[in-house]
Amino acid sequence: MVILVLNCGSSSIKYQVLDVEAAAHKLLAKGIVDRIGLAEGDLVHKPVGKDKFSLHQPIPDHTTGIRLVLDALTNVEHGVIASLDDVKAVGHRVAHGGEYFADSCVVTEDVKAKVKELFAIAPLHNPANLEGILSIEQVLPSVPQVAVFDTSFHQTIPAVNYLYALPMEYYEKYRVRRYGFHGTSHKFVAKRGAEFCGLDLANSKIITCHVGNGGSVTAVLNGKSYCTSMGFSPVDGLMMGTRCGDVDPSAVLYIAEKEGMNFAEINTMINKKSGVVAISGVSSDMRDIDDAYDAGNERAIIARDMYFDRVKQYVGKYAAMMGGVDLVVFTGGVGENSPELREWVANNMAFMGIEIDAAVNKATRGVDKILSTENSKVKVAVIATNEELVIAQDTYRLIN
Amino acid sequence: MVILVLNCGSSSIKYQVLDVEAAAHKLLAKGIVDRIGLAEGDLVHKPVGKDKFSLHQPIPDHTTGIRLVLDALTNVEHGVIASLDDVKAVGHRVAHGGEYFADSCVVTEDVKAKVKELFAIAPLHNPANLEGILSIEQVLPSVPQVAVFDTSFHQTIPAVNYLYALPMEYYEKYRVRRYGFHGTSHKFVAKRGAEFCGLDLANSKIITCHVGNGGSVTAVLNGKSYCTSMGFSPVDGLMMGTRCGDVDPSAVLYIAEKEGMNFAEINTMINKKSGVVAISGVSSDMRDIDDAYDAGNERAIIARDMYFDRVKQYVGKYAAMMGGVDLVVFTGGVGENSPELREWVANNMAFMGIEIDAAVNKATRGVDKILSTENSKVKVAVIATNEELVIAQDTYRLIN
Repeated sequence: MVILVLNCGSSSIKYQVLDVEAAAHKLLAKGIVDRIGLAEGDLVHKPVGKDKFSLHQPIPDHTTGIRLVLDALTNVEHGVIASLDDVKAVGHRVAHGGEYFADSCVVTEDVKAKVKELFAIAPLHNPANLEGILSIEQVLPSVPQVAVFDTSFHQTIPAVNYLYALPMEYYEKYRVRRYGFHGTSHKFVAKRGAEFCGLDLANSKIITCHVGNGGSVTAVLNGKSYCTSMGFSPVDGLMMGTRCGDVDPSAVLYIAEKEGMNFAEINTMINKKSGVVAISGVSSDMRDIDDAYDAGNERAIIARDMYFDRVKQYVGKYAAMMGGVDLVVFTGGVGENSPELREWVANNMAFMGIEIDAAVNKATRGVDKILSTENSKVKVAVIATNEELVIAQDTYRLIN
Repeated sequence: MVILVLNCGSSSIKYQVLDVEAAAHKLLAKGIVDRIGLAEGDLVHKPVGKDKFSLHQPIPDHTTGIRLVLDALTNVEHGVIASLDDVKAVGHRVAHGGEYFADSCVVTEDVKAKVKELFAIAPLHNPANLEGILSIEQVLPSVPQVAVFDTSFHQTIPAVNYLYALPMEYYEKYRVRRYGFHGTSHKFVAKRGAEFCGLDLANSKIITCHVGNGGSVTAVLNGKSYCTSMGFSPVDGLMMGTRCGDVDPSAVLYIAEKEGMNFAEINTMINKKSGVVAISGVSSDMRDIDDAYDAGNERAIIARDMYFDRVKQYVGKYAAMMGGVDLVVFTGGVGENSPELREWVANNMAFMGIEIDAAVNKATRGVDKILSTENSKVKVAVIATNEELVIAQDTYRLIN
């Protein structure tokens, strides 16, 4: 069954087309539509086994963008399906499902209304996600759609871990609580990691570290999310490329008051002007930081140490919360590709039974691999994440 | 040498009078002046070995309050010294020393100017502390004074741990960083705990949990503060009686925007209307919460579990940061008196070598005691804190 997976942002659409069966799947094509709404837009289409195809033209809206994707998919030269009739379902990444969605679901009028209601707490992502759903309704009106929420996996987090110690009335009134994000990734790598390391997911303590430009760490207890480092918003927890992560709220307020910032400016500061770029003064991209680090740039060294250590701190914290840990998983752009991060996190952790093979770690980039030694009580592994595959599989499951 | 220790708040003065020598000390009296500036004020004076003495009268300012204390100290009936000439020095608790004071110091014009400069980041405490210093100058002009800062012990925290991942310019411009508080207590119980458990402080990993209505946890590495849970302000870290502790800053901002709060109102919310009282809906006092917990009050149960678990989370986090832990110390009102807290924190921590004797724990309240079993790799102890003693000893050291 051919499934189109869409991840719609405010000015971009990432897509993958997969042929999914119950126990197998095959990637047919992937690509990105970018600069939607700007003077000149881009489409980059990468069909598997064929040449890459690019397009530069104005792309005024998401519907136009999706039409271009469908054209590319059925094109004689760089297409991967015979006709649009082959597309049996569309799966969407949706950022925020609030407290409504503990699982993925088939899109209905009610689902759309709830995604819209959640614009209030996910103003940057949910509108674009809904835009993608509405565009598909126009272009492929008879094809069923599935919404896969970034927050669903974390709906098992107990109240003790999802409540903030703020006045309870604001939880009741505005649903201000920890939601967590990257759920699709944490769910995928926890399951795959348990299989890969021979653990029984239903009886396991796993800590999944999804580390990239954004990042979060999740405590997965017996297969369910028990706590996660992102909170009400994706700004909390780990230090990120441009997000501050854990911070004293008074520090933010003090700066805002001194600088006369309004709420929008404060949000811009903590979301776009903080994190690695703010401390390093170099870049938000860890590859640039690695170069500056090697060149001895003092602020880059502090920034990387901070960025790495936050991950380690969460491993300690979540191990304490779960009463130990059986498996630590690294995933995401940096998690999969930075032996330095993994070394930092695993070093001096013998006290809690973590020991990795330095040579194996050093040689591992972007592939599933066990890093822990034979003697390590705790398994440590790299598991390459694949959020699109989860979306495709959830879509397959819900359509059938 | 008779030393007067003062802890001046905006409307109260807590005091102790101690006779301090190099290797010994004796408490002579303690008490509190309360409701300064209100229609009717109070003095409660407790001389050791004599009857308690109370006074009710208007106390318009700190100077008047201090005069009343000195009268009580030299009174024929309930006094503890023959004349004011016996008071050889006054030691003050000062909340915020910023980056200026890594140790206690004799009060000079320069010290007063710096305490005043720090009003900006300690608006609730430093003004009252300076008020106390100026009052003593008036009443006992020839007596030397010493300032003992709540922040000094934490000045050894490295940049990687004291910087927030916010724009560096605001650290440079406004000194926005982690400072930490309760330093006097953490320093005292780390040293005393190491002695009590036969550890070499200079080669040790200690986690000190100061838990009360306010609270903080400190990672003490080789005798020096390495990280602490309070940050730029005392609102960060643990959940407290009325303070929120760790929170997604976006959650605070979202509520503030929805409710149309200004900065002062936000600060009131996170400092005075959050924490245990906000979640339980019962009280900010853990003794009330214990009663409601035992009565099965659902929100009190969630509140206490959250409050307890935050302490456990910091033990895990700081153990990871230090590469293990040799000793966990409990102190403060709740830390010393709540076997339930200590049981919560120590339970299921065998994975990192923590095991306590349940019976010993249950029987221990307010006294120095080792709780860990013989087999426990990590020592766990209750150490009663004594901040006034540290202030008196620092004063003695600096005056001689």
